[in-house]
Amino acid sequence: MRVLGIDPGSQSTGYGIIDSDETRYTVRTFGTIRPSRRLPFHLKLSQIARGVEEIIASHSPDEVAIESPFYAQNIKTALALGQVRGAVLVAVASTGRPLSEYSALEIKKAVTGYGQAEKLQVNTMIKALLNVDGEVETDASDALAAAICHLNTRLFQKTVEESAGGGRR
Amino acid sequence: MRVLGIDPGSQSTGYGIIDSDETRYTVRTFGTIRPSRRLPFHLKLSQIARGVEEIIASHSPDEVAIESPFYAQNIKTALALGQVRGAVLVAVASTGRPLSEYSALEIKKAVTGYGQAEKLQVNTMIKALLNVDGEVETDASDALAAAICHLNTRLFQKTVEESAGGGRR
Repeated sequence: MRVLGIDPGSQSTGYGIIDSDETRYTVRTFGTIRPSRRLPFHLKLSQIARGVEEIIASHSPDEVAIESPFYAQNIKTALALGQVRGAVLVAVASTGRPLSEYSALEIKKAVTGYGQAEKLQVNTMIKALLNVDGEVETDASDALAAAICHLNTRLFQKTVEESAGGGRR
Repeated sequence: MRVLGIDPGSQSTGYGIIDSDETRYTVRTFGTIRPSRRLPFHLKLSQIARGVEEIIASHSPDEVAIESPFYAQNIKTALALGQVRGAVLVAVASTGRPLSEYSALEIKKAVTGYGQAEKLQVNTMIKALLNVDGEVETDASDALAAAICHLNTRLFQKTVEESAGGGRR
């Protein structure tokens, strides 16, 4: 199973794709989408949406995972983040890929075991878990963390279904 | 000149198209886009984006006007409104139409002469200014108000350019 994680942000949108064969996770690609600074705002959003569509077209993930925003510093940042998120969600919808949302707490817990972990702790754990050498931007590691959270959830669901099936026999 | 005004909202997105021949404004169409309640959120956003694209394809406005959000009741509504707005902006960008943004104050002032006017006052003025009989939802009248604000601004710019041109002669 191949999962695309996305971490939309007002400055930069992180993405990361992980393949899972149930015994191990392999990173396929990761990075950030940063729209050109000089563009009008709606064309920046369009660049982000096109970027997400291109990543999905290039790597054909089976499913997509994204963090649900329950928090923003203030109204202004909430509006900015919301708009980027709206652009990303429309792009994912246009590809028809199933989308799952997870809270920041669920994502951090999946990766570090601790829901209140800092971005740098998530970053360190992601690099260790996925054997990534070199620098990974925190937006990209947050996106990879969303993908891991989704893969763990799917694996857990499968285990539950299998043991329930076993119990009925 | 034909202008599409859009008023994105978390429940319903208003739209209205006005033709102007510089002596009078004629309403071409107006209404609201309301995504199906039962859809997952990203598919609701997709419906809104497709709705905006269809309106632009059907009526070919020359330009688009939208209200800039500087206000929301709280973080949660700001995130919701931001996401709808992001979907709308990506849709407008995909059509290549020029987009102008106006504050709520500018829009209300353009229509009622008073920047702090209530939605119902804007609604009453829009119906009177544009000779619309029957009910107009407030989201649609806000969208028509954004279109009028943009047409007034364009007319003002043209008048300034012409008088500046006259002065140089």
